[in-house]
Amino acid sequence: MEPLAADEIFKEFREHSIAEFFKKNRQMLGYSSPVRALVTVVHEYVTNSEDACEEAGILPDLEVRIDRISDNRYRVKVTDNGPGIPKAFLGKSLAVILAGTKFHRYMQQRGQQGIGAAGCTLFSQLTTGKPVRVVSYTGKGKAYSCEVSIEATNNKPIVKDIAEYDPAGAVRGTSVEGEFAEVKYENSDHGVYEYLKRTALSNPHTQIKLIDPDGKETVFMRSVESLPQRPRPTKPHPLGLSINDLLDFAHASSSRKISSFLVDTFARTSQGKVDELKGIAKNVDFGKEPKTLTWGEAEELINAIKSTKWIAPDASYIIAIGKEQVEKAMKNILAPDFIHVVERKPQVFRGGVPFIVEAAVAFGGGAGKKTDEGYEGNILRFANKVPLLFDSGNCAITQAVKSIDWKRYDIDMEKQPVSVFVNVSSIYIPYSGVGKESISQEDEIVEEIKLAVMEAARGVQRYVSGKMHANIESSKYNTIMRYAKQLARDLGDLTGIDQKKLEAELEKLVAKHYPEAKEAKRREEEETAESKGDDSEGVDDAAE
Amino acid sequence: MEPLAADEIFKEFREHSIAEFFKKNRQMLGYSSPVRALVTVVHEYVTNSEDACEEAGILPDLEVRIDRISDNRYRVKVTDNGPGIPKAFLGKSLAVILAGTKFHRYMQQRGQQGIGAAGCTLFSQLTTGKPVRVVSYTGKGKAYSCEVSIEATNNKPIVKDIAEYDPAGAVRGTSVEGEFAEVKYENSDHGVYEYLKRTALSNPHTQIKLIDPDGKETVFMRSVESLPQRPRPTKPHPLGLSINDLLDFAHASSSRKISSFLVDTFARTSQGKVDELKGIAKNVDFGKEPKTLTWGEAEELINAIKSTKWIAPDASYIIAIGKEQVEKAMKNILAPDFIHVVERKPQVFRGGVPFIVEAAVAFGGGAGKKTDEGYEGNILRFANKVPLLFDSGNCAITQAVKSIDWKRYDIDMEKQPVSVFVNVSSIYIPYSGVGKESISQEDEIVEEIKLAVMEAARGVQRYVSGKMHANIESSKYNTIMRYAKQLARDLGDLTGIDQKKLEAELEKLVAKHYPEAKEAKRREEEETAESKGDDSEGVDDAAE
Repeated sequence: MEPLAADEIFKEFREHSIAEFFKKNRQMLGYSSPVRALVTVVHEYVTNSEDACEEAGILPDLEVRIDRISDNRYRVKVTDNGPGIPKAFLGKSLAVILAGTKFHRYMQQRGQQGIGAAGCTLFSQLTTGKPVRVVSYTGKGKAYSCEVSIEATNNKPIVKDIAEYDPAGAVRGTSVEGEFAEVKYENSDHGVYEYLKRTALSNPHTQIKLIDPDGKETVFMRSVESLPQRPRPTKPHPLGLSINDLLDFAHASSSRKISSFLVDTFARTSQGKVDELKGIAKNVDFGKEPKTLTWGEAEELINAIKSTKWIAPDASYIIAIGKEQVEKAMKNILAPDFIHVVERKPQVFRGGVPFIVEAAVAFGGGAGKKTDEGYEGNILRFANKVPLLFDSGNCAITQAVKSIDWKRYDIDMEKQPVSVFVNVSSIYIPYSGVGKESISQEDEIVEEIKLAVMEAARGVQRYVSGKMHANIESSKYNTIMRYAKQLARDLGDLTGIDQKKLEAELEKLVAKHYPEAKEAKRREEEETAESKGDDSEGVDDAAE
Repeated sequence: MEPLAADEIFKEFREHSIAEFFKKNRQMLGYSSPVRALVTVVHEYVTNSEDACEEAGILPDLEVRIDRISDNRYRVKVTDNGPGIPKAFLGKSLAVILAGTKFHRYMQQRGQQGIGAAGCTLFSQLTTGKPVRVVSYTGKGKAYSCEVSIEATNNKPIVKDIAEYDPAGAVRGTSVEGEFAEVKYENSDHGVYEYLKRTALSNPHTQIKLIDPDGKETVFMRSVESLPQRPRPTKPHPLGLSINDLLDFAHASSSRKISSFLVDTFARTSQGKVDELKGIAKNVDFGKEPKTLTWGEAEELINAIKSTKWIAPDASYIIAIGKEQVEKAMKNILAPDFIHVVERKPQVFRGGVPFIVEAAVAFGGGAGKKTDEGYEGNILRFANKVPLLFDSGNCAITQAVKSIDWKRYDIDMEKQPVSVFVNVSSIYIPYSGVGKESISQEDEIVEEIKLAVMEAARGVQRYVSGKMHANIESSKYNTIMRYAKQLARDLGDLTGIDQKKLEAELEKLVAKHYPEAKEAKRREEEETAESKGDDSEGVDDAAE
């Protein structure tokens, strides 16, 4: 058979919009299983509200209302007291993929892609054919409501039924409401309730009311009344730049000279620093226009930057939750028997992107996860205060926590009520996927999380190991004594020596090794005897 | 402090291109660690070549050449004997993200997104500032070469230095060459060599020559001379349609009536079937134009479709590797002691998307993975014959294999030389991420993989368990006998009975329980004695 010609094959060549792409591959946005899909919707709206409130300097009050329409069809409405959306941006912010105020800014925010809310609109459209309804009041002018959907073939917004209201009595903020099918509300580790509980944990300044499909109201009360620091845009640190980044900045710059461009554009870059660079990058003309910078010159500049000493990036632009806040929130929500919280100093990855890790290990109380056999440890993952509930397998946090030799801290993640909390804060979180549910395994990030968690683990070790030691000793003692009895009986048969005598000898030997356990056992038996009266035979005998 | 007004915040509103998005988030395309980044480049070019050859009906001959320029900088050149790229498409196919011949077609291919090759171009640009060089000859007209790069702000191709050659002596095919930094060639489980070895395993009809950075040539010879079935576009099965899909097809249709639209557009849909649907979807006017179909009507149609009996999707459009081919390739490459291959019947997910699972369990020989302590099992994951080396944590294949109770098959994945091979073939693989390294955990897919692997495991069980049983028995016997000696000594001290006598008694007791092991041990001691001569003390004594 003749091979098919290229001309034939390329007749099928087409270009596609990003909206068409996600329409076909919605699982990449988190719209896979029904439970996850519902959490994804709530997650996108809630993080947008949190970001908007934080940027505007407003203490967030959120309401999440979920109504069941049928078995796999729900209405989700999220209302905030944020700054609102101006009329001109109602369509663009909710119905254009890759559009927003965050993608290009060097500022810490939960959202950083401009995909989330438009993804919800697309998902509503795909599963119910309905637009999303938005009501917003910015506190000035009129209040507006409208319906938005996406024209998928070209990723453009369709805005319909726009109405304006006299704002008399209107409350500033935004409410977004959509109807979604192929979703499910479930009270599980991966459900909406758990998502909001964890959001409250990492955002102690936020108040969230959940009205679930059964009409049950839960209010996650704020445990801190003060506003967290407002996010501020900063400048990139020279050590975090690639050659290509430097070129892009240079070509977009309106500075007259490369030297002033460097001072104006990057953090920690004084005229003195530029002079230092001049001494190293001898082939670069610092007086020429940045627009004319070539790859070769940029490369020489980057090499010069790398061979120079720099002050570390200013970590004041990174907003961690704060040690006290984490402790307060964890106690508030998990009520553990013991907790140790660690806030580490800022570190950098990829040369110059700053990040901060906070970690906590909580033990006992509401920590860990109940199982059929008892308990097991769990990991509470957060990135810029946003709970990550899915895709744990590929996450830097999971990898770091799993690489720890927990025995060194007398902790058994398989059997004990332990919760490991980790929050990574940064101006740029390198997510592994578009769905933003796991952090890419960058070496520096994994290593820093590991150190933070180990420090927290050491903090609870004394408490845990005291408790553990007693348990283990007494369990070993009991086990060995049970065998000793059996052995005494068998040896008696085999040797003809009196069984009781052998048993007494063996018990003496064992007790020598486990004096504490022997003592604990004695006390325990006394207590049992006291509570049961004299007709009890004691725990060990009764178990035979 | 006054809250910041919405107007202020929305001054920062921008729209971004998909190229800008991946420029910022290149880890999502697989460009994260240096080793993975290099594999990603090879993977994108090789799968494109394989797809092109398969569609054109050409037995693929590929050459992958990797040159080291410096420590973290390499040149990659992939040459194929495929159908070539027409001049007009050289830029578009290599330098526009979301463009190609595959995204919109209902046909099984390795690539399905139109992102891969353009992603390589972007990555080359980002790390070295260089375009990608392509040479192509379609077998007709002239041969062309040019350099391509992407204008990131608008996702448009930049084509430079286009040259045409007289094709005299030219060989039909395409060669793509790029220079990449922040990459590394490594001989590991996750390196290029392993990637190509696995590609050969799942594409036994393909010949691949690798010239590695040290100039070493490896040829993965084809083990099958026949071309696999050519991929053919098929029609979607009605049961796999969502309401939105049906509407999209209807609105894009040029049919005059809904009834003819249904027959023309979907598989297994005869006029008889349409008449059946008419009887159920009573509110739908089957005589009206499909362009006018509403959501409500589409919903009624989909409900009617779901309540009707359909012939299963035609699986002849799905190209699996084939049981014999898998066996041949696995033997060729892993040379296991034992292997069992299973090709399951086609199944469907999401109601009507057909897929086929092939699985094999190989034991001994080159199977499994060598570790410091001996061996451990490994999983060889494939989707449409493409090896998946990364993101195993979130993959349906990993999940399925890990959920199996391997003890039931006398297999220990932690300690034995076992390789589990799984290939999922479908017209649409629901990847979890843009980087296409893991399959989303759809219930039907996970379940089917599990059944396939269990069937394969049963196939090797008899072999493995025979081997295992002997090992375990003899190991138990040895362990117990070691304790028996110690016990005899201690009991001798305690009871005053002769130690030798006790030992003989105990040995008799143990041997009664493990007759085979006792016999095996006797033979083993004989052999050892023979090989070592009479001065040997025998294995067990020597170990004391």
